[in-house]
Formats: sequence, structure tokens, C-alpha cells
Amino acid sequence: MSDIEGNTIYIGKKGTMSYVLAVITQFNQGTNTVVIKARGKTISKAVDVAEIVKNKFVNSVKVTDLSISTEEITTENNTPMKVSAIEIRLNK
Amino acid sequence: MSDIEGNTIYIGKKGTMSYVLAVITQFNQGTNTVVIKARGKTISKAVDVAEIVKNKFVNSVKVTDLSISTEEITTENNTPMKVSAIEIRLNK
Repeated sequence: MSDIEGNTIYIGKKGTMSYVLAVITQFNQGTNTVVIKARGKTISKAVDVAEIVKNKFVNSVKVTDLSISTEEITTENNTPMKVSAIEIRLNK
Repeated sequence: MSDIEGNTIYIGKKGTMSYVLAVITQFNQGTNTVVIKARGKTISKAVDVAEIVKNKFVNSVKVTDLSISTEEITTENNTPMKVSAIEIRLNK
């Protein structure tokens, strides 16, 4: 099922449990890898999502890769701005 | 200078640049390793601090270790609560 491997969940403004459910759903659909991505203030939420999935829902899930970086985004008034980003790879 | 190696900076409510300065100060005092720790909502700030130090101030600084975990803390009314935590190790 290689076409549903490597799914990415982008963390936004929804509640933490929405993203936890999204990750769980991906794993239940047969994927072995889910990548959680977040930028700026949602980074904390991304870590929460990864930890909740790891600890509470699926005991077999592990964090296999974790990285932080800086991305340049363009704001509404066209000025470039640097934001921190995180990428958390979960494997089942 | 092993007694000033392995300094830890805990991220709290101060502004991001206070912690950036704290990290820079540690490196300037001769330490080779600074560990940035944060819990809950301050995790995003910890990533900002690490990225700012890495990108802007000291080109030779690298993230050599990065981990997330869950810690159990006791709240004001004595109820245990789980929070996510991050640990970012910077090496010069």
C-alpha cells in the first residue's frame, strides 16, 4: 500500500484531539508513517499530538525522526517573515 | 572547563530574546553544550530560541540532540497533569 504511506498532517487552529484523531485514522487506514508538521505557535500542539498518540492510543507507535528548522513565509502585507518549524515522524 | 559544560536553560514566560541571550552568554563563557528545556506552551518558544541562536548569532552552533517526552507535573490544586516536553541540545 505504498500510495498511502508517508501521510502528512499539518497542525493548524483546530483542537489537539482533532489532529490526534487524524493521525490515528491514517494509521488505521494502513499507513506505517505519519509526519506531523507545524510552524510557529502550533509547534507545542504538534508535540502534544505526537505524545498523545504515542502514549495513549497506539503503544506500538514510535517517533522515528524529529527535526526543527526555519522557514520563510510571506505575510498578508507581502513582507517576508521567518518562522520556526518542526517535523515529527511517527512510525507504526 | 568541565564544570561549566552542559548548561541547561529552562524556557519560561520571558521574551524569546532573553533566552537567546542566555544561551549566547553560556557559549561566550566557554561552555560547548547548552541544553534548552521547555514544557507545554513554551515548547514553540524553545524551538524559536534554538533556531535564532543557530541561524543568526553563532554560525558554528548545531542542534546535536532533540527529543520530546511526556512529564507529569502537579498542579496548584494537587492534581497530576501530563504535559509534553522538549529538550534541544546545542553544541558549539
